[in-house]
Order: sequence, then C-alpha cells, then structure tokens
Amino acid sequence: MRPPVIEELSSLVGREYVMDKLEDRICYSCDATFRSGVPEVVVRPGSVEEIMGIVRLASRRGIPITPRGASTGLSGGAVPIKGGICLDLTRLNRILEIDVVNRVATVEPGVITDDLASAVSRAGLFYPPDPSSSKVCTIGGNIAECAGGPRGVKYGVTRDYVLGLEVVLPSGDLVQVGNPVDGEMSGPDWTMLLVGSEGTLGIVTRIFLRLVDKPATKKTLLAVFETLEDAATSVSTLIASGTIPTTLEIMDNLTIRAVEDYLKVGLPVAAEAILLIEVDGAPSAVEKHCDHVIAVCKRCNASDIQVAETEDQADKLWRARRAISPACGRINPTKISEDATVPRSQLPAMVRRIKEIATKYDLKMVVFGHAGDGNLHPNILTNKHNLEEMQRVERAIEELFRCTLELGGTLSGEHGIGYMKAPFLEWETGRDGFALARQVKDSVDPKGLLNPGKMFSAISQQIT
Amino acid sequence: MRPPVIEELSSLVGREYVMDKLEDRICYSCDATFRSGVPEVVVRPGSVEEIMGIVRLASRRGIPITPRGASTGLSGGAVPIKGGICLDLTRLNRILEIDVVNRVATVEPGVITDDLASAVSRAGLFYPPDPSSSKVCTIGGNIAECAGGPRGVKYGVTRDYVLGLEVVLPSGDLVQVGNPVDGEMSGPDWTMLLVGSEGTLGIVTRIFLRLVDKPATKKTLLAVFETLEDAATSVSTLIASGTIPTTLEIMDNLTIRAVEDYLKVGLPVAAEAILLIEVDGAPSAVEKHCDHVIAVCKRCNASDIQVAETEDQADKLWRARRAISPACGRINPTKISEDATVPRSQLPAMVRRIKEIATKYDLKMVVFGHAGDGNLHPNILTNKHNLEEMQRVERAIEELFRCTLELGGTLSGEHGIGYMKAPFLEWETGRDGFALARQVKDSVDPKGLLNPGKMFSAISQQIT
Repeated sequence: MRPPVIEELSSLVGREYVMDKLEDRICYSCDATFRSGVPEVVVRPGSVEEIMGIVRLASRRGIPITPRGASTGLSGGAVPIKGGICLDLTRLNRILEIDVVNRVATVEPGVITDDLASAVSRAGLFYPPDPSSSKVCTIGGNIAECAGGPRGVKYGVTRDYVLGLEVVLPSGDLVQVGNPVDGEMSGPDWTMLLVGSEGTLGIVTRIFLRLVDKPATKKTLLAVFETLEDAATSVSTLIASGTIPTTLEIMDNLTIRAVEDYLKVGLPVAAEAILLIEVDGAPSAVEKHCDHVIAVCKRCNASDIQVAETEDQADKLWRARRAISPACGRINPTKISEDATVPRSQLPAMVRRIKEIATKYDLKMVVFGHAGDGNLHPNILTNKHNLEEMQRVERAIEELFRCTLELGGTLSGEHGIGYMKAPFLEWETGRDGFALARQVKDSVDPKGLLNPGKMFSAISQQIT
Repeated sequence: MRPPVIEELSSLVGREYVMDKLEDRICYSCDATFRSGVPEVVVRPGSVEEIMGIVRLASRRGIPITPRGASTGLSGGAVPIKGGICLDLTRLNRILEIDVVNRVATVEPGVITDDLASAVSRAGLFYPPDPSSSKVCTIGGNIAECAGGPRGVKYGVTRDYVLGLEVVLPSGDLVQVGNPVDGEMSGPDWTMLLVGSEGTLGIVTRIFLRLVDKPATKKTLLAVFETLEDAATSVSTLIASGTIPTTLEIMDNLTIRAVEDYLKVGLPVAAEAILLIEVDGAPSAVEKHCDHVIAVCKRCNASDIQVAETEDQADKLWRARRAISPACGRINPTKISEDATVPRSQLPAMVRRIKEIATKYDLKMVVFGHAGDGNLHPNILTNKHNLEEMQRVERAIEELFRCTLELGGTLSGEHGIGYMKAPFLEWETGRDGFALARQVKDSVDPKGLLNPGKMFSAISQQIT
C-alpha cells in the first residue's frame, strides 16, 4: 500500500492500529477455508466514526475493503481475495445493553458469541444461535454469514434474532435499519438485506438482537443406528410427528471414529450413524418429549438409545459434537466443508446421494450436521496439493450442489457463500434472481469495493 | 384508457376480466382509508403468465400499476392514487399445497387469510397471523403490508411466516426468492425486501408460508381497570416478567362503549380500560400461566378479572375485539386509524401522550390495539368535510408520529405506510436510510411504475 494511504489511515485510527508489514498481513490472509489472499494493509478501527472515515477514504481512492471478525468462516467470506484493506472489527467488542424488559441486546460486531450468550444468561434470558465456533467467533461474523448451529431446528438461525442494525454504507454514510421494537417496522425489512450479505453491502457497526425465555430444563439423548438412512428417517419422522427437539444432530461412522480418536469420550465407534438429540422446556414437557423421541427412534430401528443422566454426561456428548471440525481436520491436510440443506422430508434421499457421490469420485467424505433443519455438512477430506484428486473434488462438489438444488434445497444452511460458492450462486437464484441481486448490489455499492469476489461477484469458476 | 391498451389487455386476460366502465372503476378506487383514486382500467388476471404480460405492457407504455387484494388496508396501499391499472389479484386464490412433513403451505396471493387458517387447521397445523379483517383480507395483502394481529405478541407478524415468494419484477421477469427450506438460504433474505413493500418492488404471485404446531389448549381472560395507564403498566409488567401471552389487547373506555353499543355483549362500559388476554399451550402450562396473569393484573390495580369458562364466552369477547373498527366507524363519518408501535416498556408513556394529544387538539380519539407488542391503534373519529377540524387532525397525527419515534418506536406496526404515512417515512428511516431505500427502489423499478405514491414516493405532504 502506498505511503500516503498508510499515513491517512494512521491519522484516522492511530498508527498502532494500521499494519502493513508482510508478516502481519499474512496473519490476516485466510479463514477456515483453504484459499488465502494477502491484504495490502490491515486496519483495526475502534469506533464507528473511524470506520466511516476508512470507508470514505477507500471509496475516494478505489481500494477494496474486506471486513473481518474472528475469521472462523467456512466459505471464505473474510478472505481478502482482492487485497486492499482488511478491516478488522474485533476492537468494537462492547455489549452495550441487555434490556430485560424489552428483551433486546445491543452489541458491537466484535463481541464473541459465547460472551454474549453468557451475559444474556446472567441476565436471565437466552440468546439461542450456537455456531460450533461460538467460543471464538464474533456476532458480526455470525450476521455476515447468517450462522446457525445445532439449536437451529427449534430456535432458528442468526437471522431470526436480528431486529436491527447500524451500518456504514459503501458511501461512508451511517444508517440504522430495523429497530429494537420486536419485529415491527415501516416498510421492507432492510435488516434482512444485510444479514447474510457478507459485508458486500455495508459494514455492520451496531446490532440489536432479540432475546427469548431461558428454557427451564433440558435433556440430551444419544441414539445409535446401523445405517445412516435409518438415522435420517428418524429425523424426518420426528419432524413430521410435530415434536421439534432443540437439537437433532447426525454423525456418520467416519465422523464418529474421527471424534472418538481425538477426544476419547466413549462414542460407539462401530455404529454407522448416531443422532445427538436435545429437548428443552418445562420439566413435564421434557419428560414427555423424551419418551416420544425414544419411541420414534426405536420404530426407525435404533439399536441403542442412551439418555445422559448427568450434566457431565451431556457436556461430554456436546463436546464431541463441537470437536467434529478439528477432529476431521487431523485426518487429511485439506478439509472442504459443505453446507447442503434440503427440506427435512428429503433427508434420507440426500444422505443416499452424498454416499453415492463419495463412491463415484472415490473421495473420503464424512457426513454430519444439523439434520433437524435438513442442514448436512458433507466434508471432503483431501489434500489441496494432490491436483488429480482436487479435480475429482471439484466435480463432486458440483454434483453435490446440483443434487441439493434438485431436492429443493439451498447451497448455504449457515456457512454463507463467500468465494467458495459464489460461482454456483446463480444455480440457486436463477438468472433473473441473480440479476435482481446484482442490480441491488450495484445500486448500493456502485464501485464494487465492499468485499469483492464474494457472493454476487465470483472471480473465477475454479474452486481450487 | 385508450382503446389499444384495453384491446391489448383483453387479449392477455380475456375481455371479461378487463373493466373500463366508470361505475366499475369507482368500485376499485378506495380501500379502508378515506382517500380515493379512480384507476383508468381494472384488470383481473388468472395466472402468473398473464401478470407477466400485463407488467411488460405497462412497462412498455409507461402505465402505473396498483396491485390489489381485498382492499381492506388501513394505510392506503391499494388505492390507485395515480390512476393507471388496478391489478386485482383475487382470482389467484388457490391453496396449492399444505406440506405437513416440512410444515410449509404454498398459496396464491388471493387466498383469504381465514380460508388458509382453516385449511391449515384441518391439516393439524397452525398459521398464526390473524389480522382483524381475516374473514375477507387476502394473504397477498397481508404480505404487502406485513399485517399483524392480536397473536403478534407471542407469534410475530406475517413477516415471521414468509419463507419464500415468487414475484413478477417491474421488468416482467419472474423470480423466486427464499425457499421452502425453513429459514435457511444463500445470501441476503430477498423475501424480506418484498414483505411490507406494498407492491412497490414487484407483484407477488406465489407464497411459501411457515406453519407451526397447533396449541393444545387456550384460555381467554378479561381484566378491567380504572385507568388506562394501569392497564398499560400491567402489559409492560407482564412482558418484563417473562411470560408472554398469546394475545394482550387493550381497549380504552370510548372503544369499550362503541363496541358495546354496536354488539351488546356485556362489556364493562364504566371501565376506563380493559385488557383481553389469551394464553395457549399445554393444559398444565396454560393453568399456571393464567394464575400468573391474574396475579400481575391484580398487582397493577385491576378492579375485576373474568376468565371465560366456555368457548362461547371466549368467542363473544373475541367477536367484540374484531368489531372495534366497524363499531368506531359508526360514531363519526371519517375514522383515521393509526398504528403507532413503541417498545413495550414505553407503553404507559405512550398512552399518556396519546391522551394529551387528543386533549390538546380537541379531537375524539379512541385507543385500542395489540398492547402486548407495543402496537397501539389511536383512531381519530372525525369528518373529512370539516376542514377546520381536519387541520387539527393533521397536526395531531404529526405529533403522534414524532412522539412514537421519540419513544423509540415505528410508524407502522402492521398497517403499512401506503399514501398516508409516506410523507413521514423519512422521519423514521433518517435521510441516509431513505436514500438507501430510494436507491434500491430505483434500481429495481427504474420507471417508478409499481404502486406510485406509496412508501418511498410520497406525492404530497397533505394528509387531507
């Protein structure tokens, strides 16, 4: 980056928050995906006014900006694919208010998800979204990618909790969209245009979040199956029966073994699939609900069902669930995580197709995910330096996407589009839908400087 | 309308569905507001292809289009303020599918809200939004204005149930936004840009709606108060206590007397205010919940609390609630219904301010509404031919809007913006927020032909 820009940025945020040494910039070049892009400069603003200044400068000089939270993303949203400015938002990390009467939390984007959840819990309320990276990821990132988590089946995803946002537009202007009055507003819900937009339309600087009742009690169950399809059928049967558990997680045999090898918590390594199920609510309802879950799983051929008797036992199971990504990451150098989501009735068909695709392209693929909302995470365990295998990976992913859409699903349940799925987004939106999205993007960000190469502006058809 | 246009429209939809006689056009000139606009032609398409053809014709010839459902709106969204084509969507009235497994209803815009609710109920599920006009209003109109209803406090408004839409854009292109996979999608939620947009961005032709569990049982209570503020304080205390009833409706003395005079159901006409409260859920939970509601109302000085013992008693109370609008409409020739919504903690302050405004401008004003979500409906009962009084009405409404926004609220809880609030929308969005909205509107509808004079394109600062 040319010295005058560095100087101008330094005068905006202070020299110590502008990093232009290569070793620093490399630290900001990647997220949890396999591709990287080194920014020309990293800026760490401490206030909304500083962000407005940086965006105005970038607009004036035509410099791309890639906003970034904790960079745990699985679709590449925070990778500065076109260089320019990496805008690190982690210094804006204050929980500004937890309003218990109106049930609204007001936070800055850099707040860590678990920190918010704990503060809300201390105030006697509940913030449900629980991405597996919640110990480190930020609310801003959750909003950018519309993160989900195991509780999505009952409680929905991040989108369902965002009441309003304060946003710096590509022009540098500051707007507030939505409002803290729960769910009611004048006109279209502009907030929802920004949630999931990956920083391509504006930089979120303040967030109003809906809070809900804390469930009185909860219970965790583990159901063991001899086929993946039986587990999937249990899920669609449970959903169709009208009792919605809090979580309904599926893990296939490869996943179970990877996690057990990593954590040694006593998972049934011989099982072809397990379901990890949590129910919550009033104690009497939870008991009844558990009985129903057990009955359905048995009807769908579960070979064993264990109910966690202590909090410690339940914790161990959930630790296993959260360890899937790191555990699978140990098997092969490159892990490509997909996020295929289908209507719940199509879940058995989808797991069948995933297994067929793995066999057809001779790839090591693990399957796990939030089965309850139809959101599966087929993960391909590969090595990006094996170019022959990567070509097969590429074809397998294309087939996976086509099959997801054929079954009436979506390319992103909770990971976003980023650079990884950008070349395929038009398959989901259709040509005219994509054109509509581009029109809106172009009208809000006419210079195309906000997070280029993501979402509506794929830069290459190559996945590798 | 010139004969060639009539001919072209007739060739698209059939001559019997094109109405250009004055007496027919006048029937389509108004909704439930007090202003009218006679369309040059009324067209009643029977399919999405016909709608695409009409929109293309209008675009080519520069003719404005005002879409219309049952025309029960309270902000003027369906009034053809600029003439042109009135696009009556009531022939598209099929319930296409109720998918019990995935809990999604697929419907056309002209379906009557109660017809959908009944069909869903027969399928064993529940579609909660319940605008007071649900016997006649259409789902398309509910989406255009983001309608609410008494159940909003627990179940949210129409927006919370729309998973996806098929839409004819101003270009005549057809897109599908969102999808029937509950709440998960790639990128921004374009659906939410269209819900509440009053047909200014596109014509909705197909709707995917989320369905939920039917509550096992419900109970209705009536709490009587000697002051309006005590009733409002009960509401904010109840909400803050963490138990959210299904409905939490407030009616002031004038409203009570108007309804009783109209229906003779035995409402307490001496009371300064009543709350109409419903709780639903599992039987044991409902009992506990009722006890809590009674305790809180007593603490907040309720002079009497009645629990409806039979379904018939409960029905009578709800009939009274639904009769408010017609009952108040009998008092004076013109009824101007507002829709001020504030954070629930501000409810006592808001009712105080409304009473002050009524006194200050010497106007007859009734207050009722969905107190549970902070959504009040101050209604001014006046006569639009009394020009001196109408000037006071105008100033009172301005003050009402300012006060709503000062308290952190929104101009539209559930009625939309239409022509009535369009001149004031910028007060809520701010200058830059309004500019953002205009940018998007202009990019999607560059000729400004879809529902002109509404929402972002106020045509006059005059309310009268």
